[in-house]
Amino acid sequence: MKALIIDEHIAAAAAAEGVAMHALLRELYPLTRSITGAGLRATVMRLGAEVPLDVTEVPSGTKVFDWTVPDEWSIDEAFIEHESGRRFAEFRKLNLHVVGYSTPMDTTMTLDALRPHLHSLPDQPDFVPFVNSYYKPDWGFCLTHRELQSLPLGKYRVVIRSRIFPGSLTLAEHVHHGSSTEEILIFAHDCHPSLANDNLSGLVVATRLAAFLSRRETRYTYRFLFAPATIGSITWLATNELTLPKIRHGLVLSLLGDGGALHYKKSRGGNHAIDRAAWHVLRKEFPASRLLDFSPWGYDERQFCSPGINLPMGRLTRTPNGEFIEYHTSGDNVDFVLPQTLGQSWLACLKIFEALEADTSYVNLSPKGEPQLGRRGLYRSTGGYYTDVPDRQMALFWMLNQSDGCTTLLDIAEKSGLSAGILARAAIDLQASGLLQVATVEKAHRP
Amino acid sequence: MKALIIDEHIAAAAAAEGVAMHALLRELYPLTRSITGAGLRATVMRLGAEVPLDVTEVPSGTKVFDWTVPDEWSIDEAFIEHESGRRFAEFRKLNLHVVGYSTPMDTTMTLDALRPHLHSLPDQPDFVPFVNSYYKPDWGFCLTHRELQSLPLGKYRVVIRSRIFPGSLTLAEHVHHGSSTEEILIFAHDCHPSLANDNLSGLVVATRLAAFLSRRETRYTYRFLFAPATIGSITWLATNELTLPKIRHGLVLSLLGDGGALHYKKSRGGNHAIDRAAWHVLRKEFPASRLLDFSPWGYDERQFCSPGINLPMGRLTRTPNGEFIEYHTSGDNVDFVLPQTLGQSWLACLKIFEALEADTSYVNLSPKGEPQLGRRGLYRSTGGYYTDVPDRQMALFWMLNQSDGCTTLLDIAEKSGLSAGILARAAIDLQASGLLQVATVEKAHRP
Amino acid sequence: MKALIIDEHIAAAAAAEGVAMHALLRELYPLTRSITGAGLRATVMRLGAEVPLDVTEVPSGTKVFDWTVPDEWSIDEAFIEHESGRRFAEFRKLNLHVVGYSTPMDTTMTLDALRPHLHSLPDQPDFVPFVNSYYKPDWGFCLTHRELQSLPLGKYRVVIRSRIFPGSLTLAEHVHHGSSTEEILIFAHDCHPSLANDNLSGLVVATRLAAFLSRRETRYTYRFLFAPATIGSITWLATNELTLPKIRHGLVLSLLGDGGALHYKKSRGGNHAIDRAAWHVLRKEFPASRLLDFSPWGYDERQFCSPGINLPMGRLTRTPNGEFIEYHTSGDNVDFVLPQTLGQSWLACLKIFEALEADTSYVNLSPKGEPQLGRRGLYRSTGGYYTDVPDRQMALFWMLNQSDGCTTLLDIAEKSGLSAGILARAAIDLQASGLLQVATVEKAHRP
Repeated sequence: MKALIIDEHIAAAAAAEGVAMHALLRELYPLTRSITGAGLRATVMRLGAEVPLDVTEVPSGTKVFDWTVPDEWSIDEAFIEHESGRRFAEFRKLNLHVVGYSTPMDTTMTLDALRPHLHSLPDQPDFVPFVNSYYKPDWGFCLTHRELQSLPLGKYRVVIRSRIFPGSLTLAEHVHHGSSTEEILIFAHDCHPSLANDNLSGLVVATRLAAFLSRRETRYTYRFLFAPATIGSITWLATNELTLPKIRHGLVLSLLGDGGALHYKKSRGGNHAIDRAAWHVLRKEFPASRLLDFSPWGYDERQFCSPGINLPMGRLTRTPNGEFIEYHTSGDNVDFVLPQTLGQSWLACLKIFEALEADTSYVNLSPKGEPQLGRRGLYRSTGGYYTDVPDRQMALFWMLNQSDGCTTLLDIAEKSGLSAGILARAAIDLQASGLLQVATVEKAHRP
Repeated sequence: MKALIIDEHIAAAAAAEGVAMHALLRELYPLTRSITGAGLRATVMRLGAEVPLDVTEVPSGTKVFDWTVPDEWSIDEAFIEHESGRRFAEFRKLNLHVVGYSTPMDTTMTLDALRPHLHSLPDQPDFVPFVNSYYKPDWGFCLTHRELQSLPLGKYRVVIRSRIFPGSLTLAEHVHHGSSTEEILIFAHDCHPSLANDNLSGLVVATRLAAFLSRRETRYTYRFLFAPATIGSITWLATNELTLPKIRHGLVLSLLGDGGALHYKKSRGGNHAIDRAAWHVLRKEFPASRLLDFSPWGYDERQFCSPGINLPMGRLTRTPNGEFIEYHTSGDNVDFVLPQTLGQSWLACLKIFEALEADTSYVNLSPKGEPQLGRRGLYRSTGGYYTDVPDRQMALFWMLNQSDGCTTLLDIAEKSGLSAGILARAAIDLQASGLLQVATVEKAHRP
Repeated sequence: MKALIIDEHIAAAAAAEGVAMHALLRELYPLTRSITGAGLRATVMRLGAEVPLDVTEVPSGTKVFDWTVPDEWSIDEAFIEHESGRRFAEFRKLNLHVVGYSTPMDTTMTLDALRPHLHSLPDQPDFVPFVNSYYKPDWGFCLTHRELQSLPLGKYRVVIRSRIFPGSLTLAEHVHHGSSTEEILIFAHDCHPSLANDNLSGLVVATRLAAFLSRRETRYTYRFLFAPATIGSITWLATNELTLPKIRHGLVLSLLGDGGALHYKKSRGGNHAIDRAAWHVLRKEFPASRLLDFSPWGYDERQFCSPGINLPMGRLTRTPNGEFIEYHTSGDNVDFVLPQTLGQSWLACLKIFEALEADTSYVNLSPKGEPQLGRRGLYRSTGGYYTDVPDRQMALFWMLNQSDGCTTLLDIAEKSGLSAGILARAAIDLQASGLLQVATVEKAHRP
């Protein structure tokens, strides 16, 4: 079995990875993404320069489960202009100023008539909110509450140069082939406009993970999927049902660059290998981390974990959605995202992959009593002081003691308190000594 | 499926119910109940004026499992009279003064000879204890410790005008028919004489629950059973064995009017639907409540939960038996019972019934991805601020996500932290939208 | 079924047992034990004077699983002598001074050349460490760090009059036959030289347990096994594989005489009857006790709990190995071991045996409702005050309520909070009253 070992050198590289990811994120930030359209395609193209991407366009009107792929939305310009000539909520300055999927508009109205179409956040008066109306034809502008309150009375010209037309929705995938056709699915939504943590952070982490794996041999096949939230994941699921049985583990990546601790949200099942691997790694290696129960709210885990799909798929974020004040506002900008937390998120994912790759059942080939490790160079020869047995030594004992063909490496990690990484290395050493082998019939998929 | 929804209006009616229950309890208080006899029959007759009751008389001498229905006991008068003519422990003033099932007596003896037949409570010197001797022929008097200590020396005439004779034991039942023949059994013991909380409180709460349900359509059939403690429940069980397989859930009601918090005591199995429903309701809606493990001590759950009967039957009380100083004494009088806690106990039972009625498995009819709630009017149309999703909205998501045909509404309530009531209403809305239906093969009976 | 009842009289005898065990331990202390050899045989002979022992000699060179029985080691003399004539690390004064299995030596060398062969404990400068080199030919001396630092410069004569030669390894067993051929295996390692707690304490406790049981009738057969650590248990296992299927429960005894609290370390399975019985007794009767999870480190549970053997075998110690500073040093001498803790350890084992002996499933022969205990003399006849029901009464109710043929006495002990001993006595009373019997098909072996 191939072993993906995330050693000290890779851990040390996380800081430089974070800097590179932040630079990529800065490039992507200004693009006007939505659930369809040119900004979304430009984003996919830029990511495709990092790792090869297969791009699929799904036509508007395609039925996808209970939904229909919507018409495409394009926008060139939007603002409101006071009769004095002063302009406000200018799309060109910040794409959040226009409500997503706003219908075209060129008219004049009083401030009072305009007001129901203006969105602001009274509690965060300096942030522009992120608002959209994908499925109900509507239009509107978003601005800071401070600016909203300072709008002069009088007539306003309202301009939205948008188009809504039959087009397509863009999906992008990168597949890294492992020795097995069983897959780990990594999903990041790519539909939010100028919001850096939500979810350029997820996009850049996923892209750099893909780049890293492309230089490695792995057991699992890794599928990286970039798609719009909700409608995008639903569209992919509806058009890839034959792929689903191959997916053994999955992870939704979002909000990976803020300053908060890592949070893992469990899959619907709650005790799949991905749940155990992710929490094992987070608890052991990133002690401030927190574990969240599954709920049918959040990001695209809602779709992947719907009852008719039910993939063993969890979610990794730092501060969860809705729990930081910059969430879904202009405050979620490039400065809100930190290179070092991007790098740490990337490393956490790799260690989760390491645990999943090593998580199989082994058989101790000398199972009666302990084998004599000393004559194999695996034990100190002059004993007597047992108080400082190092983790490496204990990992050998744990792997031997528990490897009865049905206990997996993650089981052993949980029982022993040792990291999956150190146990994975013990398994390599014991296999080299002829004391251990992978169980012939692998329990590949834990319920 | 019929839905029993306990809404805000019913909750608001609990206070008035409490006042009505307390008035009924006052009427019942003076009657001289025992495990057989006239006072027991008078009690049953008064309850029968509230809801129709089927009364069964089981003759003395009938074999009931390991027991025999005892002879009937009647009493007209009892007292002790000092040679000075002063009377003490007069039955006519308080029926607790005579030991239950005292044999007839008309004799004279010294205080010293009398003393072994006098019962008092040194630690609660102002309370008359409740004592009986159902199965060993004996006689005695109960009085306050203060009075006992003040008894003058000398001769006493001892008078007990009682009769013990072949008669019968009285059982009373009210059955509310639901759409299913599966039953919920509600039991309250009715054998204690002038003790208000133990168990006139249980009797009046059960009676008013029966009256409430008689105006409602329900899924379950509800059987309300009033019988003497121990021998009464054993007699009913022995003479109704064919009914037992229909009983899906059960609740023993007692001590429901004191000022303490609600206590639910688990069934013998400990994780039946009644256990989960009761504790779900109490924890969520009556936060001071406490959960007690099963033990083979207490009230008639001892019989219903004996190994050869083993009904899924828990017990609801406020302060448990033996944990308040008025327990089994004259201190447990009408003033010890509060209208407001009677009303709250009544409401708690209804909410437990609501949870049991709604607790079934549903099937999401659009299980792949989330269905588009917006076009069905079940979702806000212009999104963007996800932080204040109300419970009603979340209840829809939870019901949809979990309804795979084998997860019940109580499972969902426990996972989500939402109340069974709000989930029951979400189930109604989703069924109306064609998104949900009750699973065809219902898991009616959880082990 | 035979009942082993450990009553108050036996508990009271524990102190005297402790004194007797300590006296035996003092006798055994000076013998030069190792994993083979004369000192080991002398130890076994002395224990055989207390209880009959079957002694087996397994020849050097015998293959035992992954190991080979080593050559025998004998030693008569060892010291280092400075050119001034002063001697240090004299074996005759303390057998810990020579490294176990040191090869013969008679040579002269400088202190600098000698130094790599000298072992001391800088952190405990007054203790001589215990060091051995069983499987790699080597030699050396152990001394206090204080003495090591005071060694004068110059030439040293190094004398070790040892022999390493084909001989045998000594195993000793005592079997107490019960009414069943199912066994409880008690293991104590006997290979450490002058270390009192490790493991003369285990040897004397096991020996006195065997002596006690020899005067009792029991349900289980008890096998007491004394053998060298690691190679001894492996040798016994390899040469007694046909015995293993009879072993239902097992206990490794070591470190039972220090002043610390009792510690039970769980078996590999973690929830066998021995695990539940041991922890039930310790938690209930010795409240300072602590429960340790299984780990593949420690004493011979490592062998008994290897995956190809996998016996349901736990370990009882007081302070665990490596957690007291005297561990594996000259500080672990006869004064470090206390008669009272030896006695308490002995009593704890007996109570664990009591629980295991009584742990079976019973059937309530009057399972519908409670049987009428009053007419059988098992219940107070004039009731009314239920607050002070004593444990004996509750034990009757618990046994009756739970005895459905598949719930064992340990299950009932855990649910009820009552001790296994009081439940065992209730089972006797109820069997005598014809209300209870042992389930015909016993669940003898819980997984």
